[in-house]
Parts: sequence; structure tokens; C-alpha cells
Amino acid sequence: MAEQRRGILFVLSGPSGAGKGTVCKALMQRVQNLCLSISVTTRAPRAGEQHGVNYFFQTREQFDQMAARGELLEWAEVYGNCYGTPRSFVEEKLAAGLDVILEIDIQGAMQVKQSYPNGVFIFLIPPSATELEARIRGRGTETPESFRQRFGAAREELAMMRSYDYVVVNDVVERACSRIEAVITAEHCSVERNLFLLNEW
Amino acid sequence: MAEQRRGILFVLSGPSGAGKGTVCKALMQRVQNLCLSISVTTRAPRAGEQHGVNYFFQTREQFDQMAARGELLEWAEVYGNCYGTPRSFVEEKLAAGLDVILEIDIQGAMQVKQSYPNGVFIFLIPPSATELEARIRGRGTETPESFRQRFGAAREELAMMRSYDYVVVNDVVERACSRIEAVITAEHCSVERNLFLLNEW
Repeated sequence: MAEQRRGILFVLSGPSGAGKGTVCKALMQRVQNLCLSISVTTRAPRAGEQHGVNYFFQTREQFDQMAARGELLEWAEVYGNCYGTPRSFVEEKLAAGLDVILEIDIQGAMQVKQSYPNGVFIFLIPPSATELEARIRGRGTETPESFRQRFGAAREELAMMRSYDYVVVNDVVERACSRIEAVITAEHCSVERNLFLLNEW
Repeated sequence: MAEQRRGILFVLSGPSGAGKGTVCKALMQRVQNLCLSISVTTRAPRAGEQHGVNYFFQTREQFDQMAARGELLEWAEVYGNCYGTPRSFVEEKLAAGLDVILEIDIQGAMQVKQSYPNGVFIFLIPPSATELEARIRGRGTETPESFRQRFGAAREELAMMRSYDYVVVNDVVERACSRIEAVITAEHCSVERNLFLLNEW
């Protein structure tokens, strides 16, 4: 084909306790042509973290400027540190024909949807409320009060499913990965992404 | 979950020479929980063909009655014989939670779409015009005139792609099957087919 085909933006998101990080890591090892977005952050690098590999480390001033110039697809402040998704990184990879995946929370996903309505939004959920409860308790860092908050928040977040394209149950990491891999393959076959074929015949 | 989930109707269709039959046969051997629709026909059984396995064999009168009563999702007359897709067979399998696949031509697919707008319509195409030409010539049964007709018709049919959900290039049968398998998995993950999850939490 004459033109370089653009990659597809996939957003993996979901309620707290769904296992986004684990699934995303496993996915990166399985799927070719898929590129994980590198976030910008104002927090200090931890031991072994490299600029441009784990994060793009920036000062708060630099970060605020990027946000003000619309250079971040989404961003949030968490415990005093800022995290965001750089638009240029995502755009360059997509233009080069690579798929890009963002692993972000629900609020971030909704921000990205405004810039990339053609992105593919995947909602990862735990297999059941019982399992979610076990996962949150399993962290061992929750007081009864903070548990109630997290659990209640996760249940409320579930209703956000309606704003997504796909919902993937994370029962077993490998199975969740297979489903997401299928979504990636299927989206590449969607008619609207292949209309250029009509000009090639 | 309390309720039995309905299966999904998949329609595999495409221009003449795309290889629908071969791909469909390979798919049936690979995909579980997928049921091939059995057509009704007025043509006489060939050696080894069984009623209810290869076809439902009916008289022309019976066939016309089925069509008149709306019991066929689509039908067509080809060289004096009638072929159609029985609604009841498809409905029973879907209600039992099985996916059903129809392998039909484009006109049939467009008829089915009227009854099942929520079906998943997959358009299978040869990898290129050159390859299509080779496949049609390869049958060895074409005169120059009939070749021009078939080839011209196939190119026109390509524009029907816009009425489908997915387009799958049949470059290698196994690869085409993998793509269709991915479409099946992805469709089972679509949010609109999983809204019942919101009631289970």
C-alpha cells in the first residue's frame, strides 16, 4: 500500500483492583507492534529508573507548561506528584504505524477520549465483587475505613463501563491478555479503519 | 450469572473468489461454541448428503411456504434451485448460548442484516486484484467473457464493504481464521453485550 497506515491508540483502564498494571506488563511481552506510552512525572526518579524509559522526569514548572500548552493528553496530581501522558510521544508512535497502549485510571481515560474519540477504550474488571474484595484486602495496607472507601469507589467506578468500547474480565492474567490481544487484532480488521482498501483495487 | 447469555450471529460473506467456503470450514475446526447454520434447499441430495447435516432438503412447495411465512432469514434461487437460511435453527442455537455463523453471499448478508442488525458482519476479501484474477482463472471454467463478468462483478462487490463491520483479508487461510477468531472473542467483550454485568455487582 502506498500510504503508511497509522497505529491505533488503545486505552486500558478500569476500577482500582482490576489488575491493570499486571495485565499491561504481560501484554507488552506478548504483542508485537504495541508500544507502551511513557508518562511524564514530577516525582523524583527511584533507584534504577531511567528518563525516557520508565518516565520522562520533569520539574513541576516544566510539567505545568506542558499542561498549559496542551501537550498532555491527560494528567493528574496524586499525593503531591503530577503524572501525565505526553501527546507528542503518542502521536509519533501512531504516525510511525505502531499501536500505542495507555494504562491509566478512569478519569485519565475520559480525558484522553476527548482528544482521541477514535481510540479503543478497554475496561478491565475483576471477575466478581468477592474477588475485588479479596484483592483490596490482600494488599494488607487497608484499615476498615479505607477498605470501605476503596471498595465502594470501585463499585461506583464499574458503572463507567458504559463509556468504554470493550470490557475484559481479569479472571486469569493470561486469559485477560488473550482477550485484549483479540480486541487489538479485531480493531485492525474494522471496516472503518480499512476503507483505504477501496482505493487499492 | 443467572441468565443464559445469548450467542452472537456472525455472517461471513464477501465477493466471489474470496474463499469463504474454505475459511469457514477451517474455522469450524478451530473455534468452540460456534455452530454453522444449515441451509434449506430444494435441490436433490447428492451422494452422502444427509438431511439435517448438510442441508434441510425440502420440496419447492415447502420452501415457498417457509419463505412466505417469514421463516427464512434470507434466500435466493440459483440455477433453478432455492437455498435459504432457516430462522428457527439460528434462533434456537443463539437462545442456547451458541454462536452461529452463516456463510452466504453479499445479497443474502444484506437480507440477514434486516432481521439481525446486531449480528456481526464480516467481509472476506482476496489479498489483491491480482490474486482474485488468479483465483478466478484457476477454476479453469471461465471463458474470456465469463472471466470479465466475474472479475468485474467481484470488484463492484468490494464496495459493499462499507455495509459490514469487519473486513478480513484472506491471504493465508490460517491467518484469515485467526483474524475471524479474534473478531469473535472481541465481540464477546463488547460493552453493549456485557451490560448485564452492571446488575451482577
